[in-house]
Amino acid sequence: MDFRGYSNVDLRRKALEKELRVKLSHIGNYSFDAKLASTKNCENMIGAVQIPLGVAGPLKLKSGELPVRNYYIPLATTEGALVASVNRGCKAICESNGANVYSYRVGATRGPVFYTGNLKNERKLYKWVKVNEDKIKKIAEKTSKHLKFKKLKFAGLGNYAFIRFSFDTGDAMGMNMATIAAQAITELIEKETGIKSLSLAGNYDVDKKASWMNFINHRGIKAWAEVVLSEKILKEILKIDSEKLFDVWLAKCMIGSAMSGSLGFNAHFANVIAAFYIATGQDPAHVVEGSLGITTMKVMPDKSLYTSVYLPSLMLGIIGGGTGLSTQKEAINLLKLDKKRSVLELAEVVAGSVLAGEISLLSSLAENSLVKAHKKFGRGENL
Amino acid sequence: MDFRGYSNVDLRRKALEKELRVKLSHIGNYSFDAKLASTKNCENMIGAVQIPLGVAGPLKLKSGELPVRNYYIPLATTEGALVASVNRGCKAICESNGANVYSYRVGATRGPVFYTGNLKNERKLYKWVKVNEDKIKKIAEKTSKHLKFKKLKFAGLGNYAFIRFSFDTGDAMGMNMATIAAQAITELIEKETGIKSLSLAGNYDVDKKASWMNFINHRGIKAWAEVVLSEKILKEILKIDSEKLFDVWLAKCMIGSAMSGSLGFNAHFANVIAAFYIATGQDPAHVVEGSLGITTMKVMPDKSLYTSVYLPSLMLGIIGGGTGLSTQKEAINLLKLDKKRSVLELAEVVAGSVLAGEISLLSSLAENSLVKAHKKFGRGENL
Amino acid sequence: MDFRGYSNVDLRRKALEKELRVKLSHIGNYSFDAKLASTKNCENMIGAVQIPLGVAGPLKLKSGELPVRNYYIPLATTEGALVASVNRGCKAICESNGANVYSYRVGATRGPVFYTGNLKNERKLYKWVKVNEDKIKKIAEKTSKHLKFKKLKFAGLGNYAFIRFSFDTGDAMGMNMATIAAQAITELIEKETGIKSLSLAGNYDVDKKASWMNFINHRGIKAWAEVVLSEKILKEILKIDSEKLFDVWLAKCMIGSAMSGSLGFNAHFANVIAAFYIATGQDPAHVVEGSLGITTMKVMPDKSLYTSVYLPSLMLGIIGGGTGLSTQKEAINLLKLDKKRSVLELAEVVAGSVLAGEISLLSSLAENSLVKAHKKFGRGENL
Amino acid sequence: MDFRGYSNVDLRRKALEKELRVKLSHIGNYSFDAKLASTKNCENMIGAVQIPLGVAGPLKLKSGELPVRNYYIPLATTEGALVASVNRGCKAICESNGANVYSYRVGATRGPVFYTGNLKNERKLYKWVKVNEDKIKKIAEKTSKHLKFKKLKFAGLGNYAFIRFSFDTGDAMGMNMATIAAQAITELIEKETGIKSLSLAGNYDVDKKASWMNFINHRGIKAWAEVVLSEKILKEILKIDSEKLFDVWLAKCMIGSAMSGSLGFNAHFANVIAAFYIATGQDPAHVVEGSLGITTMKVMPDKSLYTSVYLPSLMLGIIGGGTGLSTQKEAINLLKLDKKRSVLELAEVVAGSVLAGEISLLSSLAENSLVKAHKKFGRGENL
Repeated sequence: MDFRGYSNVDLRRKALEKELRVKLSHIGNYSFDAKLASTKNCENMIGAVQIPLGVAGPLKLKSGELPVRNYYIPLATTEGALVASVNRGCKAICESNGANVYSYRVGATRGPVFYTGNLKNERKLYKWVKVNEDKIKKIAEKTSKHLKFKKLKFAGLGNYAFIRFSFDTGDAMGMNMATIAAQAITELIEKETGIKSLSLAGNYDVDKKASWMNFINHRGIKAWAEVVLSEKILKEILKIDSEKLFDVWLAKCMIGSAMSGSLGFNAHFANVIAAFYIATGQDPAHVVEGSLGITTMKVMPDKSLYTSVYLPSLMLGIIGGGTGLSTQKEAINLLKLDKKRSVLELAEVVAGSVLAGEISLLSSLAENSLVKAHKKFGRGENL
Repeated sequence: MDFRGYSNVDLRRKALEKELRVKLSHIGNYSFDAKLASTKNCENMIGAVQIPLGVAGPLKLKSGELPVRNYYIPLATTEGALVASVNRGCKAICESNGANVYSYRVGATRGPVFYTGNLKNERKLYKWVKVNEDKIKKIAEKTSKHLKFKKLKFAGLGNYAFIRFSFDTGDAMGMNMATIAAQAITELIEKETGIKSLSLAGNYDVDKKASWMNFINHRGIKAWAEVVLSEKILKEILKIDSEKLFDVWLAKCMIGSAMSGSLGFNAHFANVIAAFYIATGQDPAHVVEGSLGITTMKVMPDKSLYTSVYLPSLMLGIIGGGTGLSTQKEAINLLKLDKKRSVLELAEVVAGSVLAGEISLLSSLAENSLVKAHKKFGRGENL
Repeated sequence: MDFRGYSNVDLRRKALEKELRVKLSHIGNYSFDAKLASTKNCENMIGAVQIPLGVAGPLKLKSGELPVRNYYIPLATTEGALVASVNRGCKAICESNGANVYSYRVGATRGPVFYTGNLKNERKLYKWVKVNEDKIKKIAEKTSKHLKFKKLKFAGLGNYAFIRFSFDTGDAMGMNMATIAAQAITELIEKETGIKSLSLAGNYDVDKKASWMNFINHRGIKAWAEVVLSEKILKEILKIDSEKLFDVWLAKCMIGSAMSGSLGFNAHFANVIAAFYIATGQDPAHVVEGSLGITTMKVMPDKSLYTSVYLPSLMLGIIGGGTGLSTQKEAINLLKLDKKRSVLELAEVVAGSVLAGEISLLSSLAENSLVKAHKKFGRGENL
Repeated sequence: MDFRGYSNVDLRRKALEKELRVKLSHIGNYSFDAKLASTKNCENMIGAVQIPLGVAGPLKLKSGELPVRNYYIPLATTEGALVASVNRGCKAICESNGANVYSYRVGATRGPVFYTGNLKNERKLYKWVKVNEDKIKKIAEKTSKHLKFKKLKFAGLGNYAFIRFSFDTGDAMGMNMATIAAQAITELIEKETGIKSLSLAGNYDVDKKASWMNFINHRGIKAWAEVVLSEKILKEILKIDSEKLFDVWLAKCMIGSAMSGSLGFNAHFANVIAAFYIATGQDPAHVVEGSLGITTMKVMPDKSLYTSVYLPSLMLGIIGGGTGLSTQKEAINLLKLDKKRSVLELAEVVAGSVLAGEISLLSSLAENSLVKAHKKFGRGENL
C-alpha cells in the first residue's frame, strides 16, 4: 500500500489494519491536533504511541540568576525504577537546601563540507572565511529573526574543507533554523569563491553522533549542577556514607569508563536525559550527545560529599519540534519556566535532574540494592 | 507534595494540576492499563505523553534465514521529514529487489567492579574466574530459565578488577535478567574468593554510554543490511548518481566523522533508531549505543551503488520493558515477526530501516535538497 | 650505587661496568660535548646510544612561501625497509613535480588545573580569565623574549577548572618556555582570585597522550602535504594503479581505522615521524601526538591519484632539547632550512616525508609486496 | 644524487657532504657493524645519531615469578630532568621495599582486510575461519619455529572483512614474523575461499596508531606495577603527602584526561617508554601504543599511598630490530634479564620504570616544583 494515498490519519490506520489484519485501536487513541502533527511532526501518520509519564520532585534548584525554585520533573519512561530513583535524588537534594545550577549557550551547530580539490583552494577558502565573518553573520541572520550567528570553526585537509557554524537559536532547539542559515552561508561562499560544497552537513557539525568534538567543543547548551550532601542525608535518605559512594564513583565512572573507552564518565545520564527529552518534546536522537558528560565527587573533611554533573552538549527547545504537541506542551508547563531565561532554565533543570539520578543510582550501587529496587518497582516480573 | 501519597494516576495528576494551577488533560488521556504500567514501567505516574506514530514501507528484506518479506516500519517521531525520508529509502530498496540483512546475538552485558586491593588479589580473582567459568554459567542460569551465559571478559588494574558478562536473554532486551544474573555471580565470587565488589555495574559492561567497548566488542545484537541500487533507481527515486552519492558519503561519513572524533561513521542512524525504539517500546536510552556504527558505499563498474550499514550494538526485546504497553505492542504486531527468530528478526528490520534512512538522507544532501524537504514537510513553520 | 656520586660520564660508566660486570664500551663511544649534554639533556649519563641514520630523497617540495626545494630527509631508524620505502615515495613525488606543503602554527600548549571548590568559584575564575587576557599575555611574555601568548581555552566542571594556554615559542619546540610562562600566569591567577592550582599541567594541555583534544583543536604546528601521481608514475615507480591504491586506502585507513577506534586514519605516520624526530633531536615522546592524522586519496578522471596527508599536532624545534647535540645538529643542517621560516619549514618537510611514506607503504600493501620488501631489506633474518 | 650508487656508508656520507656542502663528521662516528646495520636496520645509511644514555636506579622489583631484583634502567633521552625524575621514583620504590610487577603476553597482532563484495561472502569467510582455526594455526606456525598462533578476532561489515591474528613471537617483538605468518594465512584463506585480501595489514591489527582496540583488547604484552608508599617516604623523598598527591592524580590523570579525550590516563608514560625503547633498541614508533594506559592511586587508612600503573600494549623484544646493535645490546645487558622469562621480564621492568616516573612527576606537580626541577636540570638555558 502507498500511505500517501490516504487523506487522514484514521483512514490510513484503518487501511493498514485491513491490509495486515491487525488491531491498532490504541494507536488510534490520541488527543493532539492530527492535521498539524501530520504536517509538522510525522508523515504517514497512523496515530500515536503512549509513553507513561511520571513526575519526580520537587527538585530545589538555585541558578544564581533566578530565585530559588522547586520544580516537578516530567519523565516519560517505560523503565521501572527510574522515576523512583530520580525522585529519591530530588529528596536528597531538597534536604540539602537545593542544588546550584548553571548553564551557558554554545549554540546549535551545523555546517558543510566543501570539495576544494587541493590545498591552494583550501587556503583560499580559509582566507575568505576569515575575512568575511561579518558578511557570513549578516546573511545568516537574514534567514530568521530568531537566529544569531555566534562563531565558526574551520578545518581543511587535502581536497576537503569543513566548517562548523554555531548559532544562537533562541527558544528553539534550532536545527532547522541552523540548517537554513548554513544553507544561505554555503551558497554565499560558493558564489564568492567558486568552491562547491558536497553536503550541507559534513559530520564536523556534528549532529546526533557520539563525538569528541561535541564533548570537547560543546554543542547547544552546556549545563552544570552541584550539591553538597551531608553525612546525615547520605545516611538517612541514601543509606550510604560519603567514602563508600566516592569509591564507587571513582571505580565505575572514572576508571571503568576509561577502561571501556567511554565518552560518558557517569552512571546513567542517558536514562534521565531520554525520559526528560521524550516528556518535553525534544528530539530523542539528541540523547546521543545529550548524555555525554562527567559526574564528579569529593569527600569533604566533615564527611559530607560534594557531587556535581557536567553536561557539555544539550540540544533543547521550548518551541518547535515536538514541544508544540499537546501532551508535551503540558509537560513543559509543569516546569513553569521563566519567560526570559526559558531554554537556559530548561537546561539547568535537566542538569539538576541528572544530578538527582546520579546520586540515587550510585548510592544504590554502593549499597548493593540495585536488584532489590528493580524487583520492588516491578521489573522483576519480566524475568 | 509527595506523589507517593496518591493511590492512583488520576488522583495524582489532579493533585498536581491543583498544586501548580496547570491543566494536564491531554496527559490524562491514555489507554494502557494504568495500574500495570505504574507498577512495571513508571513510578509517580500521572498519565502519558503521546508521540506521533508514522509508518514507512513496505521495506523488502531478505534475511537468508526466512522467506523474503515486506515490512511496515513503525516510527514514533516528532521530527518532520524523518518518516518521509525513510519511506523514500524503503521505496528505493524495494525497487532494488530488497535488502539483504543479517544479525548475530552477542548478548546483553552486565558486570561488576571488584576492589581487589592489590595485584596479587587481582591475579587470584582472575585465576578463579578462568577456572570456574562452568560454575559461573550454572549459577547465572539458575536465576532465570530464559537466560543463557555466553562468555565473560576480565580486566584488572591496580586495586580494581572489572568483569563483563554476556548473556543470551531470549526475547527480552534483558538488562534486568542480566543484572540479576550478574548479582548472583558476583555473590558467588565474593563468597569463594573473599574479594568484594564495589558496584554491580562497573561501566566496563558498558550500559548507555557511547563507548569504544561496545563499538569494538559489541553488545546485544549486531546487525547488517546491504543493497545494490541501480543507476536507474538512483536517478528516478533518489535524484542522484552513484558517484556523487559516494563522494558525499566519503567526505561526510568517513572523513567528517574522523575529523570530529565520532563513534558514528554514518549520516543519521540515531534518528531512525530513536523513532523505532520509541515506537516498539525499547529503552530509548539504548539509542546511545544503538546509534553506533558504519555506513559503507562503493560505486560498481555499472554505475550502480553498493551500500551497507553495520550496527554493532542493538539492545532489543519483544517482551518486557515498554514492549507490553498497548500502543507499543500494536506497533510490534505491525511487523508480524516470526515466532522463532523474533529479536534477531527485529534487529534485521532495524538494520533495514536504518539503511533506508541512510540512502535517503545522503541522497538529499548530495542533491542539496535537505532544506527544501524540511520546508516541504512543515518544519519551516517553526522558524 | 648512587650515580650522582660520579663527577663525569666515563667514571660513572666504569663504575657501572664494574658493579654489574658488563662491558659498555660502545656506549662509551660518543662525540658530543658530554659535560653540556649531561647538564642539559640527560642526568646520570653513562654515554650514548647510536641509532643508524639513513637519508631519503631528494624530496621536492613547494611550500607556496619559498622557492621549490629539494630536501634530503634524515631518518634515524633501526627498522629495515623504512628508509627504502620513504625513498621510493620521494622518487614518486619528485617525478610528479613535487608535493605542495603548507603549515600553520597553533602553538605549544600547557596549562593548569585549579581546585575551585564549587561552581561559584569556577564562574569567578572564568570571568577573571575572560576579562584579563591582556594581563595574562603580558605576564606570559615577560618570562621569555622568544614567547608570544596566542590564546587560551577554559573548561570548568564541578570543583575543578582547566585552562589550556597556547604560545608561539619561535624556533624552539617550546615546552619548557610554555611551562615557565604557564607557571607565571598561574601564580598571577592564584594571587588575584585566591583560587589555587592543583597542578601546573592538568592533562587538558595535553602533552604526550593520544587525545582527541590535540586531534580536533591541534597542538604545535599543523601541516599538510599533497601530490597528484600520474597513471604512469603509479605504474612505473609504485607498481600499482590508482583504483587499487584507493581501494586499499579506503579499506585500511578509513574503515579499518574506524573499526579499531583509532586516532590515526593513515598507514604509518608514526614510523616516519619517529625516525625524523630522533634524527633531528625532537622529543621522541611527541611521536604520540605527532602521529595523529589523516591520509586522503581520490582517483581523478585521468586515472591519476590525488593524495594528501594532514598532521594536526607536530611539536617541533630547531633549537633547544636534543637539537643542539652534535649529530642531531648535523642532521638538521642537511635540510638547509630557510632562516626566516625555520620551524614551519621543518613541519612542511615532515609532512612531505610522511606523504612519501604513505604513498610507498600503501602501494606495497596494494601490490602485496610488503613481505617481499621486508625480506629483501634484511628483516627476514630475524625470524 | 642517488644514494644507492654508493657501496658503503662512508662513501655515501662523503658524497652527501660534498653535494650539500655540510660537515657530517659526528654522524660518521659510530661503532656498530655498519655493513650489518645497513642491511638489516637502515637503508641509505650515512652513519648514526647519538642519543645520550642515562641510568636510573636501582629499581627494586618483585615479579612473583622471580627472586626480588634490583635493576639499573637505561634511558636514552635528550630531555633534561627525565632521568633524574625516574631516579627519584626508583628511590621511593626501593625504600618501600620494591614494586610488585606482573605481565601477560597477549601477542603481536597483524591481519588483513578482505574485499568480500557482499554480506553473503562475508558470512562464508567468517564460517570458514571459525571452522578452520586449526588449519590457520598450523600454516602460521610453519612460517617460523619461534612463532605460535594464539587467537584471532574477526569483523565484517558490508563488502569488507577484517581479521586480527595474535601470535606469540617469543623473544622478538615480532612484527616481521607476524607479518609473514599473516601472509601465509591470508594466502590460504584466499585459496580456499576464493575471497581476496586488499591489504595484508588492515588497521584492525592495529599497528602504531593510538587506538581503543589496543587499549581495550591489548597488544604485545600487558604489564602492571604497584607500590605502597609510606607517609614517611612520601614526605622525605617526594616532599608530599598522600592526599595532595591523590588530589593531583584525580584532577589531572582522570578528570583532565577525560576532558581532553585522551587514551592516556596518566602523567607521562610516553616519556619513560620512549627513553627506554630507544635505549634498548625497540621500535620507537611503538611508543604510540606503548604509552596507552592508566595510573591509579588510593590513600590508605594509615596515610600511605597505593599507586599502580597499567600498560595494555607493550611491543617488546630482546632479539631482532634494533636490539642487535652494539650500544642497544649493551643497554639490554645492563638489565641482566633471566633467560627464561626474557621479554616478560623486560615488560615488567618497563612497568616498574613507568611507575617510578609517575610517582616522581606527579609529586613534582603536586608540590609545584616542576619549573624548578627543569631549571635545575639545565633546560632553563634554552629559553
